[in-house]
Amino acid sequence: MPELYYGGDYNPEQWSPEVWAEDMALMKAAGVNLATVGVFSWSSLEPEPGRYEFGWLDQVLDLLHSNGIRANLATPTASPPPWFSLAHPDALPVTADGVRLLHGSRDTYCVCAPAYREAAVGIAKVLGERYGDHPALAMWHVHNEYGSTCHCDHVAVAFRSWLQRRYGDLPALNAAWTTAFWSQGYSAWEQVFPPRRTQYLPNPSQMLDFRRFLSDELLDAYREQRTVLRGFNPDIPITTNFVFGPWVPVDHWRWAREVDLVAIDHYPGSAGIEAEQDTAFGADLARAWGGGRWLLMEQAASVINQGGRMKAKEPGRMTRNSLSHLARGSAGALFFQWRASQGGAERFHSGMVPHAGPDTRAFREITELGALLPRLAEADPAEVEAEVAILWDAESWWATQGPALPSPQIDYLAAVQAAHRQLWNLGVPTDFAQPSSDLTAYRAVIVPSLYLVSDEAAAALSRYADGGGQLLITSLSGIADPTTQIRLGGYPGAFRELLGIRVEEFQPVDGRIELDTGAIAEGWSERVLLEGAEAIAHYQGGTLDGMPAITRHANAWYTSTWLTDPAYEALMEQVVRAAGITPPGLPRGVEVVTRRAGDTQYRFVLNHTTEPAGLPYGGFDLVTGEVTGDRFTVPAGGWAVLRNSTAPTG
Amino acid sequence: MPELYYGGDYNPEQWSPEVWAEDMALMKAAGVNLATVGVFSWSSLEPEPGRYEFGWLDQVLDLLHSNGIRANLATPTASPPPWFSLAHPDALPVTADGVRLLHGSRDTYCVCAPAYREAAVGIAKVLGERYGDHPALAMWHVHNEYGSTCHCDHVAVAFRSWLQRRYGDLPALNAAWTTAFWSQGYSAWEQVFPPRRTQYLPNPSQMLDFRRFLSDELLDAYREQRTVLRGFNPDIPITTNFVFGPWVPVDHWRWAREVDLVAIDHYPGSAGIEAEQDTAFGADLARAWGGGRWLLMEQAASVINQGGRMKAKEPGRMTRNSLSHLARGSAGALFFQWRASQGGAERFHSGMVPHAGPDTRAFREITELGALLPRLAEADPAEVEAEVAILWDAESWWATQGPALPSPQIDYLAAVQAAHRQLWNLGVPTDFAQPSSDLTAYRAVIVPSLYLVSDEAAAALSRYADGGGQLLITSLSGIADPTTQIRLGGYPGAFRELLGIRVEEFQPVDGRIELDTGAIAEGWSERVLLEGAEAIAHYQGGTLDGMPAITRHANAWYTSTWLTDPAYEALMEQVVRAAGITPPGLPRGVEVVTRRAGDTQYRFVLNHTTEPAGLPYGGFDLVTGEVTGDRFTVPAGGWAVLRNSTAPTG
Amino acid sequence: MPELYYGGDYNPEQWSPEVWAEDMALMKAAGVNLATVGVFSWSSLEPEPGRYEFGWLDQVLDLLHSNGIRANLATPTASPPPWFSLAHPDALPVTADGVRLLHGSRDTYCVCAPAYREAAVGIAKVLGERYGDHPALAMWHVHNEYGSTCHCDHVAVAFRSWLQRRYGDLPALNAAWTTAFWSQGYSAWEQVFPPRRTQYLPNPSQMLDFRRFLSDELLDAYREQRTVLRGFNPDIPITTNFVFGPWVPVDHWRWAREVDLVAIDHYPGSAGIEAEQDTAFGADLARAWGGGRWLLMEQAASVINQGGRMKAKEPGRMTRNSLSHLARGSAGALFFQWRASQGGAERFHSGMVPHAGPDTRAFREITELGALLPRLAEADPAEVEAEVAILWDAESWWATQGPALPSPQIDYLAAVQAAHRQLWNLGVPTDFAQPSSDLTAYRAVIVPSLYLVSDEAAAALSRYADGGGQLLITSLSGIADPTTQIRLGGYPGAFRELLGIRVEEFQPVDGRIELDTGAIAEGWSERVLLEGAEAIAHYQGGTLDGMPAITRHANAWYTSTWLTDPAYEALMEQVVRAAGITPPGLPRGVEVVTRRAGDTQYRFVLNHTTEPAGLPYGGFDLVTGEVTGDRFTVPAGGWAVLRNSTAPTG
Repeated sequence: MPELYYGGDYNPEQWSPEVWAEDMALMKAAGVNLATVGVFSWSSLEPEPGRYEFGWLDQVLDLLHSNGIRANLATPTASPPPWFSLAHPDALPVTADGVRLLHGSRDTYCVCAPAYREAAVGIAKVLGERYGDHPALAMWHVHNEYGSTCHCDHVAVAFRSWLQRRYGDLPALNAAWTTAFWSQGYSAWEQVFPPRRTQYLPNPSQMLDFRRFLSDELLDAYREQRTVLRGFNPDIPITTNFVFGPWVPVDHWRWAREVDLVAIDHYPGSAGIEAEQDTAFGADLARAWGGGRWLLMEQAASVINQGGRMKAKEPGRMTRNSLSHLARGSAGALFFQWRASQGGAERFHSGMVPHAGPDTRAFREITELGALLPRLAEADPAEVEAEVAILWDAESWWATQGPALPSPQIDYLAAVQAAHRQLWNLGVPTDFAQPSSDLTAYRAVIVPSLYLVSDEAAAALSRYADGGGQLLITSLSGIADPTTQIRLGGYPGAFRELLGIRVEEFQPVDGRIELDTGAIAEGWSERVLLEGAEAIAHYQGGTLDGMPAITRHANAWYTSTWLTDPAYEALMEQVVRAAGITPPGLPRGVEVVTRRAGDTQYRFVLNHTTEPAGLPYGGFDLVTGEVTGDRFTVPAGGWAVLRNSTAPTG
Repeated sequence: MPELYYGGDYNPEQWSPEVWAEDMALMKAAGVNLATVGVFSWSSLEPEPGRYEFGWLDQVLDLLHSNGIRANLATPTASPPPWFSLAHPDALPVTADGVRLLHGSRDTYCVCAPAYREAAVGIAKVLGERYGDHPALAMWHVHNEYGSTCHCDHVAVAFRSWLQRRYGDLPALNAAWTTAFWSQGYSAWEQVFPPRRTQYLPNPSQMLDFRRFLSDELLDAYREQRTVLRGFNPDIPITTNFVFGPWVPVDHWRWAREVDLVAIDHYPGSAGIEAEQDTAFGADLARAWGGGRWLLMEQAASVINQGGRMKAKEPGRMTRNSLSHLARGSAGALFFQWRASQGGAERFHSGMVPHAGPDTRAFREITELGALLPRLAEADPAEVEAEVAILWDAESWWATQGPALPSPQIDYLAAVQAAHRQLWNLGVPTDFAQPSSDLTAYRAVIVPSLYLVSDEAAAALSRYADGGGQLLITSLSGIADPTTQIRLGGYPGAFRELLGIRVEEFQPVDGRIELDTGAIAEGWSERVLLEGAEAIAHYQGGTLDGMPAITRHANAWYTSTWLTDPAYEALMEQVVRAAGITPPGLPRGVEVVTRRAGDTQYRFVLNHTTEPAGLPYGGFDLVTGEVTGDRFTVPAGGWAVLRNSTAPTG
Repeated sequence: MPELYYGGDYNPEQWSPEVWAEDMALMKAAGVNLATVGVFSWSSLEPEPGRYEFGWLDQVLDLLHSNGIRANLATPTASPPPWFSLAHPDALPVTADGVRLLHGSRDTYCVCAPAYREAAVGIAKVLGERYGDHPALAMWHVHNEYGSTCHCDHVAVAFRSWLQRRYGDLPALNAAWTTAFWSQGYSAWEQVFPPRRTQYLPNPSQMLDFRRFLSDELLDAYREQRTVLRGFNPDIPITTNFVFGPWVPVDHWRWAREVDLVAIDHYPGSAGIEAEQDTAFGADLARAWGGGRWLLMEQAASVINQGGRMKAKEPGRMTRNSLSHLARGSAGALFFQWRASQGGAERFHSGMVPHAGPDTRAFREITELGALLPRLAEADPAEVEAEVAILWDAESWWATQGPALPSPQIDYLAAVQAAHRQLWNLGVPTDFAQPSSDLTAYRAVIVPSLYLVSDEAAAALSRYADGGGQLLITSLSGIADPTTQIRLGGYPGAFRELLGIRVEEFQPVDGRIELDTGAIAEGWSERVLLEGAEAIAHYQGGTLDGMPAITRHANAWYTSTWLTDPAYEALMEQVVRAAGITPPGLPRGVEVVTRRAGDTQYRFVLNHTTEPAGLPYGGFDLVTGEVTGDRFTVPAGGWAVLRNSTAPTG
């Protein structure tokens, strides 16, 4: 039976060796079996150029090994030490304003600086050589949360090379970027720069290509380290932890192909049911990137260190969050970090061991989860099955982060999350897919605001609907081609024929919009003409009064307005029922994720409400080790993992 | 009969020649007779230094000519190409923070950089030489929306020269700028700089002089091009399109004297009745600058590309906006731009031909307006007559944009717009005038927040009131002299004697203020002592309870508080009635602008409401070509242009 | 009998000599006896390097002297002239972003630049030499409002020296700053910088030490001038005016030991009762810094020149504010400035003589206060007695301005002001003390959010409570040690044993919190475990339902939540009553400050309400010179100073 990973970032260099001994005892008490070490240890490992101090890490790895804990060993390349800044000031990152950043935080490097790339490969080589065969080594953790941006001259050089590979020559770039507008035509490559501060609105195509370039450039840097590490021991899996946010220029679909195990960091910022929905969203996305198997590399035990107010997780939420990830295929539950720091900028980020120590509610919950995990391991080979997929596309996200869109409220991530949230509320399991994925296995596919789409992907979606799949497309889809130029003739460009409509104009509005079905929407409307589709809801009032708002053209559905949750959920239910899917009718706030392996079925039941929840089935509860009756009640805020086969072990 | 211009910015360099052919057909269908070409074409015309590509422009001008469309040919100097940045990095603009901007947007030049000035004159010369006698050429459009700012060392040199011309010597500058405050005394000219980032509040006189200087410097740059173009063909009128906004350091009164036809760009940002009021405001101001004749060079067909949410114009609004401008003397109705761009930062700014193409509601409205214009041309020689003038003064605007004023809500533009709005609501035609204008023709003059005023202008206003004119002055007028130093002895300094009052203290307040007349004001109050005037309204409550709020001293009225619209309108009506003007009593939201030529009278009627509006007169409707009865009903959202003489042609 | 100082900043260099003559007459009419001259006069005194113009200052000092007014002569070092910037561009301050500021405002110098330090000492020497024995000279006013920050390379050098003195070697610095976190370990001193713009969250210990360093460095600069001035005339007291705000890196407790008379500038930003509370707060703090004797160096006669809306003081408030300061031990009432400026950035800051001149309500109130002051002088030797002290600690303030605290609402200043406000509302006189002060004289000590505390100070507070004093500690106290590292084992670290509690987790919340006593709190809660203490209020609702919110452990009280004012006042009353103090039960908004000298008692009575206030005592009123009855009524907005001994003179 496979083992589920349990543990987190372990930073012994912040503590004295006496604390290490206590750490080992507490880790064993908590059931920890994997410790991520070395993530930000460069200055501890190489305090001066070329002078290494491995003693502490040797000792820590040996300690872990002798305590039966495996190591997820990181290369420390996300934060070069201060001496590196002084030796290579040209490798410090530069903002779009031309401010050269200084060390004193983390991630103060330019990924395009040759000195940085050389040093990163160098330290990876030293670590690979020393620890590649260490018996504790379970995994290589390259770098940390790739995603830093720079606008310096090294970046300009690399950006130009990337553009040359993409476009071949300047006329092609000028055409793709519409440089005839505002006299931006380039006549020599050295005139092309990363987006830097300019007088007024920047060029949207340049902005998009810069993010594409950064994703590729960062990936090259990852690959260089991977090559080095692979060389020392080809049996150790190699990964890096994905971070996800509007500022991150990384296309995770492409990166997922380059890691041995997709790993994500996940920190929902909210504290209510939204945090549970966000957790499910992140886990479903990671499962899609990982092709079913992945790992939750970081989560918070309680409060998160973010700019604003830190939300403490109430008792039980940490466990439910972890189970939500595990239910969706995570190979474990890991945390940042083992022990809350005593100093540094993240001293108030919660740890598995809080400042108040192990005699705390928080650490007891950690220990209880640690004891539970081995009992859940039997479910690990079982698979999540979903009949609905949502399309996720980094390029549409980036394109809708560009300048001067028709509304400042356009938010691709929010649109995708809204689609996922409706399905979560309906209790319908959901996958994510790429526009280019084979979608034939799905009964329904949801396409939220796929602003930028290639002709090929648009054609594939048409074929999908022609082949019998239900397809729900939402506003702002199909607008642009991959250069980010608008598709002419009417919106939603690439999907006009498929949807049987033509949109003449966007009409973003302030506030509330009413439809003749009683549905409420907000913020966005469109002047829709029917060209084959039927209207299943119309605008009511305003200048679009009586015009189509939601349409259906055979299997292809379209909403031209931003539906509020109740209206969106009703539409989503209509679509999935048309696809032959019956939502399970769970109590609101009760989440059930089902995994199957042959005839064996595991139901992860999470009750996020403050009331006990009755379920119409029971089984063998892996949590309690007891067989329940035919009906089962999960306590308020509680959880269960029910196996249909009631034998004591799966 | 004169022809009214109809058309807009035409940027064929963004499109393939096949599209050009379609453009010609659609332009003719739409009644277009003027196309503005070349505004941002520098990189298309001179893709490398000294290598010109005129083929496409030759072809376009010939195409236009052969289709009976005239050209408004622009010099492309608002956006030098990328090659120019690399050749002359010192000509890139620098922010007050010292950030040197880069190309990648538009307007990335420093107007004081010798290399820029030379290049701008150079490209103007090349264009003048090649196209000065082209049969399509109707007008030269120099540059685009002059108004860019820079803080570099070239600017410092030019600013010092300007200051030397203004002040002669440093003691005069030190006195005018009150440099004794905070130890800012200058002892050598090279110590004087444009305002750059400093530790705390900047010097308000320096800020004001910098805007004055920029207006003059930009004007010099315009004049240099004008001289060159004039040389090639003295018969072609030369202009530049004025842009208007808080960031624009241009004194349009002075610039208006230097163009052959005042031209403005006008983009109201709102979508309700405020947009109509703003349109009337802009058009009245342009008419004043132009001395009666002017041209609407740019407006949007529907949505505007601004930072925030883009407001679509509902059906009919584009036509009403255009008629509002035409009614007020515009020589035509032009748009930015002919065809909505497929790429670039303004791809979502509406075009006359939208992304959805000509088979759209929007293009049909464009075509209908194009068909209407020739029928309105007969009204062109008729003149708008106004008996009320509002003073507009760029220097008072700039001075009240300075640091540390008594309230962050002080907003000169809003104060002037509020005065205009009351008159618009009353249906009273309004002119704008300068403080130095001859005002004798007006029955009433409104002076909103004329913060900065010369002794001469103040004396002229006194003479105006003495001569029988009604004069309404509002708070914050007369405070400073042209150096922006405070006039001592009590506010409102320059107007104390005229108004028969003395204000001891300003008392800005948060929120609502009540007067004993029931009037409501907000944000601003003053401790007013009567010195000859009578109080016609008093403060009620607060520390000023019972003290005068609105005063009258013979013909000179004063409000010391910011009246809300209903109260302000009531005061305004009192003033205009005192001047012998009777407001016409139109239904609210129905706008009538009257033009006269001898006995012939044209009434432009715009119904901005959602109800039909009955009017107590009729005539020959130039829109429908029909003679109406004595009473006339304009449909909801509709329009008419009624000639009193009912003969079929005027 | 001592004389109370009355006057303000006098800037004759902004005015012509004719105005000076009027100034003398008006000063005498107003009772002015002290004029602060020269604060920003550097460019007037040394218009070019080495060329001095003393004529005007000679004349002004002689004028003052001949009119019986003494001079508080400033060194003008807060604003070097423009010529200095050009001679020493390296002495201009640099922001954390690397922007070098330019002159054009005030305070454009780097305190660590050798050229600045030399020039500052130089001009002090010149002034000391020339005026050290001038008969008008009453006081030296060194510089103005020390507090400017810089991040340049001069600062880096000085910061490293300071750190070397503090930590000795880099390992100690690395440990104190937790540089093992995020790979920030320093291996050479030249790698250490002031905080400059970096990629993400900065190091909190570095931030704190930078403020400590700046306080010391600025103090060194002050001491250098003091040494020079002392040398010319050892009898003249030397001070500098303290400014107080979140941006000021000055530890006033330490600075207070270095001035001959603590002097503060005080500008409450609000206009309601909060302004009175803020005035009392500032005056009590200044009295504490000064050990009883101090001077209000600057206040505003009416409106204050701040970024936002300027609040005018309503009639009487200026007098009540002044009396509030005088009641609390100020040696006088001084203003910025004598005459409102005609130009410059602070032209709208009110003056003793407003723009409207002396024939104004404002100047009449100035004159009345001037006439009253000599009658109050007899109270000057009497002392304010307080039985309660609040701890004030600049380092806790700075530490809670660091990055990534658990809530963006953490606000040390607000927490201290809230404690003071409750006592003010209760009418209980309050001192301020340092954590290291001898507290035995106080019956109760309030410790608001003392985030950072040394072991020694924490032990002293324990001894204080053990010795019988009542001690109220509020949330976020005792969290960190002087390195700003968290004290482990549970919050509130240093005070856990004393308070008999252990806090496991912080739980900041949005909005309202209810306690089982009916008390309302907001924003902050904690999971509190009792370890000896009793709970006197519990949380009600939420995840902490039923857990302790307010605790008491013998004499040591703790609130774990941010109580709203009514609840906080109730708790405060409970604590002071436990200490044997009975609040006087004054009408809300009526302030009485009592000074004693032997048996003689002076009651300063300020009625901040809009109703007359009856008091249960009377006496000889120094204001009116009359003996009142046993009961006394102070008019709405009025004041009295009652001596218990009813003899006509004290």
